[in-house]
Amino acid sequence: MADIKKLNTWFQVADNSDFSIYNIPFGVYSDGNVKHHACSAIGDSIIDLFELESADVFDLNRSVFEKENLNDFIALGKTVTNKVRNKIIELLCDENSILKKDTALYNEVIKKQNVVKMLMPVKVGDYTDFYSSIDHATNVGTMFRDPNNALLPNWKHLPVGYHGRASSICVSGHSFHRPKGQTKPADSETPVFGPSKLLDIELETAFVIGKGTQMGDSVTTANADDYIFGMLLFNDWSARDIQTWEYVPLGPFLAKNFASTVSPWIVTLEALEPFRVKGYEQNPPLLPYLQYSGNKNIDINLEVYLKPQNGEENLVCTSNYKYMYYTMEQQLAHHTVNGCNINIGDLMASGTISGPKETEYGSFLELTWRGTKPIKLKDGSERKFVNDNDTITIRGYCKKENIRVGFGECAATLLPAKN
Amino acid sequence: MADIKKLNTWFQVADNSDFSIYNIPFGVYSDGNVKHHACSAIGDSIIDLFELESADVFDLNRSVFEKENLNDFIALGKTVTNKVRNKIIELLCDENSILKKDTALYNEVIKKQNVVKMLMPVKVGDYTDFYSSIDHATNVGTMFRDPNNALLPNWKHLPVGYHGRASSICVSGHSFHRPKGQTKPADSETPVFGPSKLLDIELETAFVIGKGTQMGDSVTTANADDYIFGMLLFNDWSARDIQTWEYVPLGPFLAKNFASTVSPWIVTLEALEPFRVKGYEQNPPLLPYLQYSGNKNIDINLEVYLKPQNGEENLVCTSNYKYMYYTMEQQLAHHTVNGCNINIGDLMASGTISGPKETEYGSFLELTWRGTKPIKLKDGSERKFVNDNDTITIRGYCKKENIRVGFGECAATLLPAKN
Repeated sequence: MADIKKLNTWFQVADNSDFSIYNIPFGVYSDGNVKHHACSAIGDSIIDLFELESADVFDLNRSVFEKENLNDFIALGKTVTNKVRNKIIELLCDENSILKKDTALYNEVIKKQNVVKMLMPVKVGDYTDFYSSIDHATNVGTMFRDPNNALLPNWKHLPVGYHGRASSICVSGHSFHRPKGQTKPADSETPVFGPSKLLDIELETAFVIGKGTQMGDSVTTANADDYIFGMLLFNDWSARDIQTWEYVPLGPFLAKNFASTVSPWIVTLEALEPFRVKGYEQNPPLLPYLQYSGNKNIDINLEVYLKPQNGEENLVCTSNYKYMYYTMEQQLAHHTVNGCNINIGDLMASGTISGPKETEYGSFLELTWRGTKPIKLKDGSERKFVNDNDTITIRGYCKKENIRVGFGECAATLLPAKN
Repeated sequence: MADIKKLNTWFQVADNSDFSIYNIPFGVYSDGNVKHHACSAIGDSIIDLFELESADVFDLNRSVFEKENLNDFIALGKTVTNKVRNKIIELLCDENSILKKDTALYNEVIKKQNVVKMLMPVKVGDYTDFYSSIDHATNVGTMFRDPNNALLPNWKHLPVGYHGRASSICVSGHSFHRPKGQTKPADSETPVFGPSKLLDIELETAFVIGKGTQMGDSVTTANADDYIFGMLLFNDWSARDIQTWEYVPLGPFLAKNFASTVSPWIVTLEALEPFRVKGYEQNPPLLPYLQYSGNKNIDINLEVYLKPQNGEENLVCTSNYKYMYYTMEQQLAHHTVNGCNINIGDLMASGTISGPKETEYGSFLELTWRGTKPIKLKDGSERKFVNDNDTITIRGYCKKENIRVGFGECAATLLPAKN
């Protein structure tokens, strides 16, 4: 991959900021005065695109930046959205740009991130979750089935996926109650009802569909990137005890549909392009519709933190998106090969992203090996799974040649079960 | 259940019409002049509610009848929607009503069903499919697992369900291409790619959510009916060969998300109330949150027809909604017991509704017992599964004391696979 073309911005950006001039992601915010405006981010600030367009810099009807979510903006197509992103970069690099020179405009447009509230960036029509990390699938298969045949026969032939619940996907910063449900303890003849005792996370990313298809159409691995607007971080909260009892034969249901968390910033595929790396070697070879060429994996560092109530943050694991066996392009080609139609705003999540090392597992299930090896926290307490009032934060970033493009935070707090 | 209060309408309605004065369902139509108006049905006609409200009969802002779908109308709440339905009944029974007397109004409001096009009645946020027919689950378990342990251990303790794809749900009258995908023939070491060879139907109904909840809230079996607006017919098209290969361990995905078909009329829960019957005897007893009282099953006759291209319709099977083991109220209580939130327009489908007799199975998989006992058609041809250019039509109706309340048709045509 070629070197990254260097950019210089007049805006003060800390070296470790996720929101360098190379990022310029998209989101939606609100504050005391603004109900919902589309925005981008630079350093510790947001860029209000509705206010910026009062200066007519994008040549767009600015009402598209005043919507509840980015769906209508994304629907303008990549030609337009890339033009907007490039124009923002230009305004932030040009010392003589209107944004730098016009103080009144600057003050309307630039706000500190810590004084605004980020909203759900898209209206999700359908949400799909894949199961595409080979280390995760191997760990789970080893634990619950047979260590010698950990992967099921279909796993290396297709990206296994299933449909999830769109209604309970929330943006970072929310809290939710520990779910209640049916479980069947090993020592009980019959199921019991109560709060889940094995509440887990799943370290994931998700991609946002940027272009729809009609029923009957298929996306190919070669043109899939035209349909992917960008990526965000995703926590697929999972109640393991509910899952074990309910999931046969039709898959997870109440074990997962009580809550999922996404990060608020959609990092565009264009911003991620410099961090592409070679994909996982796929053997046995795949059917032609799943084959692809080029570097289609992405080197994204991922981290999970746990913060007990009033306590300190603890790093729980690190992983990397590059450990994925299947690429997003393959997932999307598979999803649509039967003619299934996709819509702008649909989310397709990766599945738990585990790496090969024990410190790189993307769930407590794997990190504590079903609770047999608890994690020790700085305060001396232990965790087999997530406790009430714990806050889980996923962070993620790409870094190369000292250039950093990050996702911000995907955080949520688990409250005790409702009475 | 008490006798049904008798109603007399001045409108000519055939004895065998699904749309008697006792029905008065809701839908959305279009024609050469109308883009989308909410409507009801009586006999062979539709009732344009937007045009009817020009006479101010409901005391509503008539723009709610001019939307793409019924979601905003349903959001007015059952107090309002029931009032509208009762008012329509009153107008159709009162010999002196404005609808009968005002010919100009009548001509704007009443149109023959065969000259309008019915549209998707709701915008579906999330779609869930259950698996709640004991005869269906027993047949499938017998075929694919163990006849002596056909039902999995969880089946009699909870209504098994999974999330499906909302984007590919289409209204009756559409056609779609036979899906292509991966299958693994028994005699092959590796999977192959091509059009599905075992394209099946699933005879189902679905209920429409009429009132939303917040995350963390749960609906009970006792108040579930407040959240159910009505029912429609549902065909959950399924590619059995794709399903067999892909569905372990996370459930059906591409085998089902290429297309589903719904009937255009939402028959309200209130119209179905007179046809309630006792539910299936549930033994072992269920956990308290799934218990209920009263007659909560419904006696709905169901029929599936197959029409070859340019051929005659053949009755393929008959079944009845009353064969369901779990009621809608139980399904909804289960779905939300973990705090999963629901939205107006969500669809929750029954799963294949099979009866105890071999002629009452709701899928070709069961009717032909995996293709071993083909169905003979009037034209002498046979079907193991659905052939290209076959049209499948589901019909359904309640009947009691010569009163009929029906659903109309849920029809779709299978086109050959795309090249």
